[in-house]
Formats: sequence, structure tokens, C-alpha cells
Amino acid sequence: MTLIDCHQLAPSVGDLAGNQELALAAISQSAAAGADLIVLPELTTSGYVFTDPEEARASSVTAADPRLAAWATAAGGAVVIGGFAELGADGRLYNSAAVLDRTGLRAVYRKLHLWDQEKLFFTPGTEAPPIVTTAFGRIAVVVCYDLEFPELTRAISLAGADLIAAPTNWPLAQRPEAEHAGVVGIAMATARVNHVAIACCDRTGVERGQPWTEGSCVIDQDGWLVATPDERGLVRAELDLTRSRDKTMTSLADAFSDRRPDVYSRLAQAYGLTG
Amino acid sequence: MTLIDCHQLAPSVGDLAGNQELALAAISQSAAAGADLIVLPELTTSGYVFTDPEEARASSVTAADPRLAAWATAAGGAVVIGGFAELGADGRLYNSAAVLDRTGLRAVYRKLHLWDQEKLFFTPGTEAPPIVTTAFGRIAVVVCYDLEFPELTRAISLAGADLIAAPTNWPLAQRPEAEHAGVVGIAMATARVNHVAIACCDRTGVERGQPWTEGSCVIDQDGWLVATPDERGLVRAELDLTRSRDKTMTSLADAFSDRRPDVYSRLAQAYGLTG
Repeated sequence: MTLIDCHQLAPSVGDLAGNQELALAAISQSAAAGADLIVLPELTTSGYVFTDPEEARASSVTAADPRLAAWATAAGGAVVIGGFAELGADGRLYNSAAVLDRTGLRAVYRKLHLWDQEKLFFTPGTEAPPIVTTAFGRIAVVVCYDLEFPELTRAISLAGADLIAAPTNWPLAQRPEAEHAGVVGIAMATARVNHVAIACCDRTGVERGQPWTEGSCVIDQDGWLVATPDERGLVRAELDLTRSRDKTMTSLADAFSDRRPDVYSRLAQAYGLTG
Repeated sequence: MTLIDCHQLAPSVGDLAGNQELALAAISQSAAAGADLIVLPELTTSGYVFTDPEEARASSVTAADPRLAAWATAAGGAVVIGGFAELGADGRLYNSAAVLDRTGLRAVYRKLHLWDQEKLFFTPGTEAPPIVTTAFGRIAVVVCYDLEFPELTRAISLAGADLIAAPTNWPLAQRPEAEHAGVVGIAMATARVNHVAIACCDRTGVERGQPWTEGSCVIDQDGWLVATPDERGLVRAELDLTRSRDKTMTSLADAFSDRRPDVYSRLAQAYGLTG
């Protein structure tokens, strides 16, 4: 069993020092509790609601920044996945997520699908999300809006991810009473069709007038919510990640071997699609 | 606005005459109410829980069968989508769905993803689901388990479907209290990520000990349920199908143009996937 903690923090725009305090406190708390995987929100280091590119740049750090290394140190034996505003070696800004463990920085992922005004501040990534083999399984990382693109989550699942960690900042949206947030419903369905565990770490706090969904959750391989935030914004779940490696549903049904790649490869042509 | 009716019928195995009565009564009722689209369950003509291939064969009909033509006649000006056990010209059995309108049979779709024991009775299809241009928009048809394969529903949506009609027979499965059935959640998420309307027509009645989800629903382009069965098993919704043609969410976000086909085309290679 793997102990997973998601911390629904409230970073503030531009407050690198304060945000680092929040992150380190959360990571230390989880490490002390024996967590194996610790997930922090999207853009934990920088906050989200920038007014202009200069403000985003002032809040960005490189992947080699000692702040990220300090996350790894605080985590002890745990794996940390968290979002940060990345200043690339190319001078561009990326909405990125780091995967860290006791050996340091294992991977950096640059968000492929930038949501709305993020396009004014960040450059989209160009590389496939990493799937990192850790002491606690094969951990993939995507960021927020990425979850809404089944092309990506399907490929990650087919590639053998045991868990998809998704740092998010989900702006609050209207929904019918008694329904999960749309973004949560998408994550649940993604887990279910792919028989893969998903851990979403949303943020909280109203930032420059923007409220958030506060939809952090750990979802099992059947697509059900196994944990949502407690009063402190902590989501804690114990999950058997090895279940993600078995895609069978009955003796005659298997979510992956029932796929029809022979047909999928012909769909674009059948429908006259390009790109 | 398009008036959509789904009839959650209870066909009986092998009772072709009785099942035809059920179907015609449902279609006539909807036609009288001015429905534009009428959706019937999977395998409406034959029932579902076969004991052996011979029983399935005895319940199968060709796509040219006058029973299907009678559906079109009863529908008046409406479009009918319904499932039937098809005897192909090749002598094989298919779990198929017909799309009919006042001009007759518009398309036949053979289910690509056979669920569980269906594999003992049916041959899977090999062709892309049809997207039929009708008086009420571009109507795609898939059957039941097909909905759990995002490769298919994504391609259908990219191809410009206004509505995905899904005849289903959803076996009842356990779920946490207060949650939608997993299959309904998948349909809702599919509608939401693709900004496409979906109409699922499930069946009812316990057949040879098998209870059903009774999850029939019409889902709007935001992924919300707009209609579920009334006490008669009728799902009726009025929906603006033209909304499926607009994939924008904000002035800077669009579910389709935000896709990254440049990256998707490299994912299989990046992850070392084949097929």
C-alpha cells in the first residue's frame, strides 16, 4: 500500500519566500506521517493570477533552484511532485512540475496544454510527460488542464503508469447541485477507463478575486474518490498502486486488450481528419 | 432545439415479435410527441442474455429486415437509432445499431468493442462508427462499451458529430452511494472534454437474473445530465445541438484547438508503445 498526501495550499502571487514556507511545512508534515507520495498544487512557488509576464518572470525559478532541492530534503524518503514557474535555460517561462526524491530532481515536466490566460505568461512544453520509476511505483505527472486531453492520459496509461499525479489550480466553475466539479468528473472517468490511480492536488484561497474549486482528490483504479480534503486541506489516501497493472474487468473483458488499434489507426482517414 | 427521446425498454431474449411491439409503441409515442431523435437500447430486437450462439442466431435479423423498416415508418419525420442483433451477409452475427429516417435505413454500425460474453456470440465490427447527416444534425452512433474507449469518441467528436447516440445494455455494477454509475460518469466526461451532446439509451427489466443500470440519459455539451428516466423509463430532453460545433470555453481556451497533435504523434515513440 502506498500512502499519498495532497496538500491543497494557498500560494500567493510573487511571494516566493512565503510559498516556500508553505511547501516545506506541508512536505515535512507528510514526511513525518510516513507518506510515500506528496503532491503539491500547480505553481506552488509562484502563485497563479499574474497581471503581466514581468510578474510571472519575477516569480520564476530554474529547475536547479535550491528551493526545489529543499523540497526533496524535507521529504526524506518520500517522492514529491509539485508545480513551479520555471525559468528555462532558453530564457522562457514554463508552467512546470518537478518530481523529486531523496536522490534529488528526477524529472521536470513542462505543461503541454496551457489554460486560458496562462498563454500570456508561459511557453507550452513540447515533451511527453515523464513517467518516473520510483521506490513507490511508476509515477507520471501532468498539470491541470492536461487532464482534459484523453490523447495524453491514455498514452500515459498505456505506457504503464501506476499513478498520474496532477498538480492543478482549478478555477471555480458553476455546476449543478450534487455534481462533482466537471474537472473532478473528468479525472474520475480518466482513472476508470484507464484503470489507473490519479492524485489531483488543487489549491485553495481566493487569489486576486479568483476562487478555486478546492477539488483535490485521490482516485482509485475504478474511478472512485477515495479521499478528498479534510478541514486543513489535506487529502490522505492509502492505495494499492499495483492494481493499476491489471486492466482486466472480467475473464473476458480487459480495458486495454479490448482496444481496437487496428481501427483507431484508420479513423482519421475514415473521417477525413488532419492533424 | 432538438427534441430527443430515449426509451429504456425491457426486451426479452428471443421474443422478436414482442420486442418489435415494444419498439414500435415507443417510436410511435415519440413521433406523436414531436420527437426529432428517438434512441432505443442495444439489442432491442433480440434481448441480451443469450445462453449460446444458436440462441443469438435465432434472434438475429438482417439490416434489410422489414422490422427495421417499420421503425422508420413509425417514426414519421424523426430519426431512429436502435440496436439489433444483425445477421450479416457473411453469415456472421454482429451487435449492431441502425440509423433510420423517413428515407429508410441510413447506416448500420457494428459494435467495435464487444463486452465480456458478447464475444461468445458476436463478431466485432471493423468499420468506423457512422456519422449521419440528418435533418437534425450530424448524428454518430456507438454501442455501450464503445463509450469507454476515448480513442473512438474523440475521433468522432473531431469529425464533427453534433450528438453521439449510444444504445446500451449496462449491467448493474456496484458503486459508492451518491455516485453516478461509472458508465454514466464516463459518458458525462466524454461529453465535457469533447463539447459534444450524448444520448445514452439503456435497458430495464431483470433478464435471466441480470439487472441493469437503468442509466439512460441525455448529456449536454458541458457534460451535465439534462434528462434521466421518468417513471415510464422515458428520457426526454430538448437540446441545442448546434452548441456541439463551438469548442471554445474562453476567448483564449478551446477544447480542440488547444490539442497538441504535434506531441500526441510522438507519444507512442516516446513511451516505446506499439499498437
